[in-house]
Amino acid sequence: MDSNNFCVIMAGGVGSRFWPLSRSAKPKQFLDILGTGKTFLQQTFDRFKNICPLENILIVSNKDYKDLILEQLPEVLEENVLLEPMRRNTAPCIAYANYKIREKNPEANIIVAPSDHLIMNEPEFERVIRQGLDFVNENDALLTLGIKPNRPETGYGYIQINHNQKIEESECKPTKVKTFTEKPNLEMAKIFFESGEFFWNSGIFLWKLNSIMGAFDKYLAEVNELFKKGIGVYNTDGEQKFIDQTYSESKNISIDYGIIEKADNVYVLCADFGWSDLGTWGSLYENSQKNEENNTVMGKNVLLYDTENSIINMPEDKLVVIQGLKDYIAVESDGILLICKREDEQKIRQFVKDVKIKKGDDFV
Amino acid sequence: MDSNNFCVIMAGGVGSRFWPLSRSAKPKQFLDILGTGKTFLQQTFDRFKNICPLENILIVSNKDYKDLILEQLPEVLEENVLLEPMRRNTAPCIAYANYKIREKNPEANIIVAPSDHLIMNEPEFERVIRQGLDFVNENDALLTLGIKPNRPETGYGYIQINHNQKIEESECKPTKVKTFTEKPNLEMAKIFFESGEFFWNSGIFLWKLNSIMGAFDKYLAEVNELFKKGIGVYNTDGEQKFIDQTYSESKNISIDYGIIEKADNVYVLCADFGWSDLGTWGSLYENSQKNEENNTVMGKNVLLYDTENSIINMPEDKLVVIQGLKDYIAVESDGILLICKREDEQKIRQFVKDVKIKKGDDFV
Repeated sequence: MDSNNFCVIMAGGVGSRFWPLSRSAKPKQFLDILGTGKTFLQQTFDRFKNICPLENILIVSNKDYKDLILEQLPEVLEENVLLEPMRRNTAPCIAYANYKIREKNPEANIIVAPSDHLIMNEPEFERVIRQGLDFVNENDALLTLGIKPNRPETGYGYIQINHNQKIEESECKPTKVKTFTEKPNLEMAKIFFESGEFFWNSGIFLWKLNSIMGAFDKYLAEVNELFKKGIGVYNTDGEQKFIDQTYSESKNISIDYGIIEKADNVYVLCADFGWSDLGTWGSLYENSQKNEENNTVMGKNVLLYDTENSIINMPEDKLVVIQGLKDYIAVESDGILLICKREDEQKIRQFVKDVKIKKGDDFV
Repeated sequence: MDSNNFCVIMAGGVGSRFWPLSRSAKPKQFLDILGTGKTFLQQTFDRFKNICPLENILIVSNKDYKDLILEQLPEVLEENVLLEPMRRNTAPCIAYANYKIREKNPEANIIVAPSDHLIMNEPEFERVIRQGLDFVNENDALLTLGIKPNRPETGYGYIQINHNQKIEESECKPTKVKTFTEKPNLEMAKIFFESGEFFWNSGIFLWKLNSIMGAFDKYLAEVNELFKKGIGVYNTDGEQKFIDQTYSESKNISIDYGIIEKADNVYVLCADFGWSDLGTWGSLYENSQKNEENNTVMGKNVLLYDTENSIINMPEDKLVVIQGLKDYIAVESDGILLICKREDEQKIRQFVKDVKIKKGDDFV
């Protein structure tokens, strides 16, 4: 295995969209929502074990999740678990990882990946990653993975390439990015989908350490300087104290907004390995096994009658009888019950806010 | 208080219609479904405390519920809790009570009443009962209480009087019964309702001990003879053993079918004291306080959105968020969750049977 290969798994998310299944004490990346036997974080970690040496896999997350991470990933090196004292979005997280890696191997090629996405075709994933690593090793490029859309999805951001570089099925190779676009409405999504110029933004990046550090220097020098001060402290007992201080001083900014959307050496490698960010109950439903009535059911003691197109997610042993639900989400976790129409799942965020206000932090 | 007044409260029911709120280990009469602070049994007991001396109030129920009864009714005399070893419907239950009472007071006037009905106007109830007691004290009559219908209800049995005896608002008095009818369909119920000749069968009976014993002798001699053998054993240490044996030999028959529908001295006293048998979620809903969206809600931590005309019955402290339910029942009790359309509540009985088959007796 190439000892220059490093992986940074970002595991600090705290979304409320899967509440009450995900809670602030246990967000989605730490859950096995699909019932595969592994949490998303575990799946992600295992996926990279074939690509990077174990000692080159870093996890970045919030301090609060340290124990959870060490528990779920018994193989991870404790020194490779980077603990953020507060949320500062992805740019500081990557700057921190850059300097940690720099001390170990200035020639590193780095993959940065979210911890809570679904990837179905692991061999194809590995092949694409290796293709991307080869590219960034030889080019001063910031490479993103762009997923070939199979439908006009409105839930994802898109990456556009130049019209004259439109990619044929047979020749997926790194291609210069024209622009990044936010989540489109359905009309636009249809145009994107049919054009062949647009890819879903997977949030997976590849680059040489030198390339990303150069980009930080150019576009986010302020953040870069803060973390540069830690040279000599990284991988010592003083690291956490330095990081706690540095994070409080750093601005809150994403790598996309801070660098990727500005840099002129951004490439996209198109990929087709059965990807979903599983960011909504809808996408979870799409990717789950369904019974004859198109229900996806978790829980051994769930009896359904006249129930269709619904997501039923109950504690393993809880006895539940449900009749007459069509297109609903019914989920119970840790003693909290949520029933909601599938078409209204975007309201869950508001429900969680209301719960926080009316019932307190313990329930969110 | 008249020491001839006796009351027999029948508390052996094990219905599954309110499952999972009612369970075979704790049927409806032992629950406070309306959240009044008292269970139905406690309400019924208290209601009769003004009418009968404490030592004249008998409870008949299954052996399994002995502890529950003594716990809920600390005032009841333990010797007045009649314990059935098995279910034999109401006739054996009343025969048993007859002989128990006979030993104490052969001049008794007896009220027999279910333990799980709702009565809103207690003073009016008391007035009607006293009127009935006066009548049965002076007449060899089997008197039933007939509730003045306020709607064409299909969920109750009806008692018909003769057309020429049609009762005016002002003159409710004991009237000869023409016939008892089963639950009608809606068309029939409308005719019943409009005729003025029909009353809801409340299941509350009044009679002199001699009258009911005479009727047993005439119409259910076989059952009567069995219990007659216990004379001298009632109210002694041998009573329970005798009863256990006698019940196993007795036939399973209701007082209605065995006596009331056959006897020629059956009268009805019309009553209007805000009665409901609360035998269905529908009737429970009718009799419960509702919020602005016409939901009846039990549980302190229930948040509702876009939810109307529903019955939400959750454990007091459970956090529940429900969105988009209209005309549903959502109830959790003792770790079991049921969601069901209100219009399909009659299916609950089948659900419970299925649960019993698929998951075992522990859940019913």
